[in-house]
Amino acid sequence: MNEPTLISHNKMFNGHHERYRHFSTATQTEMVFAVYLPPQALQGYRVPVLYWLSGLTCTDENFATKAGAQRFAAQWGVALVMPDTSPRGEAVANDEGYDLGQGAGFYVDATQEPWAAHYRMYDYVTDELPTLIEAHFPVTDKRSIFGHSMGGHGALQIALKNPGRYAAVSAFAPIVNPSHTPWGQKAFAAYLGDDTAAWAEYDSTELVKNAEHKLPILIDQGDADDFYPGQLQPQTFVDAARGKGWNVQFNLRPGYDHSYYFIASFIDSHIEFHAQALDL
Amino acid sequence: MNEPTLISHNKMFNGHHERYRHFSTATQTEMVFAVYLPPQALQGYRVPVLYWLSGLTCTDENFATKAGAQRFAAQWGVALVMPDTSPRGEAVANDEGYDLGQGAGFYVDATQEPWAAHYRMYDYVTDELPTLIEAHFPVTDKRSIFGHSMGGHGALQIALKNPGRYAAVSAFAPIVNPSHTPWGQKAFAAYLGDDTAAWAEYDSTELVKNAEHKLPILIDQGDADDFYPGQLQPQTFVDAARGKGWNVQFNLRPGYDHSYYFIASFIDSHIEFHAQALDL
Repeated sequence: MNEPTLISHNKMFNGHHERYRHFSTATQTEMVFAVYLPPQALQGYRVPVLYWLSGLTCTDENFATKAGAQRFAAQWGVALVMPDTSPRGEAVANDEGYDLGQGAGFYVDATQEPWAAHYRMYDYVTDELPTLIEAHFPVTDKRSIFGHSMGGHGALQIALKNPGRYAAVSAFAPIVNPSHTPWGQKAFAAYLGDDTAAWAEYDSTELVKNAEHKLPILIDQGDADDFYPGQLQPQTFVDAARGKGWNVQFNLRPGYDHSYYFIASFIDSHIEFHAQALDL
Repeated sequence: MNEPTLISHNKMFNGHHERYRHFSTATQTEMVFAVYLPPQALQGYRVPVLYWLSGLTCTDENFATKAGAQRFAAQWGVALVMPDTSPRGEAVANDEGYDLGQGAGFYVDATQEPWAAHYRMYDYVTDELPTLIEAHFPVTDKRSIFGHSMGGHGALQIALKNPGRYAAVSAFAPIVNPSHTPWGQKAFAAYLGDDTAAWAEYDSTELVKNAEHKLPILIDQGDADDFYPGQLQPQTFVDAARGKGWNVQFNLRPGYDHSYYFIASFIDSHIEFHAQALDL
């Protein structure tokens, strides 16, 4: 395993916000991630980890600087891990659109050219990154996961496909049925090809229908979000989950949009939700 | 008075974060500012205003997106107003350095060429902007003021020079004696000329020595700040104020740096400090 190299660190809420670079075997590129270690982790305790998956165009920095999450991670004693949203670099395939290629990995393992060589964000986020985090930082193997928009899709499908690995999942304005909405259809056709059976493997609404391992789910959606309901149809997922008797918490928030101003407004309740699922 | 034009608005913590553009008679340019109206202001109550002055290179957006201040403004029921740090535009004089010209107005009224035509940030922040805010938004004429670095200098000297106008003043890592430190010397020589008597009019440490109207003062400084103590010597100001019997709260924060990660960590205590001075 390649040791991660520290890029920067900042003290925050008596914990440490740190950025690292490492060579990823999954993506075959250098990858950057950020980790927030709460004060408890600096005082000799191992803490559980809450993974955040960001949306289109983001790096690890958007959530780190804009969400205000570290305040509540420090309060509850949970580490935050914030990966990038795709492999990057001159050798990595890209697209002129903001919704495909670099910054838009969609948390899938691409099977199609020119994407297959590096676009393996599902493998990276689900396997390589937790293994690295649990080897190098003062954390336990208890995990939870959340995300925004494309990252909400990532969090939901990863939690549903890996029963027992995550204590809970939550999402802000998630893409829940990418097989049936434009962002997902464009990305899935490029990364996974024309066979829509392959798409269903990464489609939360399809996955929840067959999921057997129930876990706590929380979704917040602003009703003034420009992408709602064209790209974002959380009710479809909620209906599918509730149809099986799952108790999904779904909050439609009047007047809120797709921005980090929305995320910051409700980040406390999401972190509390995960903290409770993690027995903090 | 020119009506401000709404650029964007985002719901946040049940209040509104709004950005406006207007033509400033002080700077003779278009100026952008942001205002956060807490929920109380949207429910028919007039609320007091807390002015934030940003540091070098910032616009209105750094504090708005990174400090997490709106959470506490909403809690206490105070509006936040966030001006830009200088006039801007092709017709406005500039410098290649990040510490002079656009993004570096230093909250003074320049008397020297080529700056005098537009660099009137003292007048803008102290007079024109509050007049506009109090005419157009659901606020009272109770004000308080705070800032970071160059903006900490701005907040302190403005509060000291305008007795009775501000309920309190606070600062993160402020430049307190610009006449005697490199950033201030470079900017004051350019904007105010060689006569250091003119500099003293904008130097908080000089001003506090002769100030008669006591007001609550809070300063936070990280001891891992790269600019401390070369550019930032808060103890000099604190000593001068305490020497006159003023009760300044000064917190030297171990391990914290100059970034917004530092500001976010202590923003709650600053807003609480102003809220109490404003009788909230």
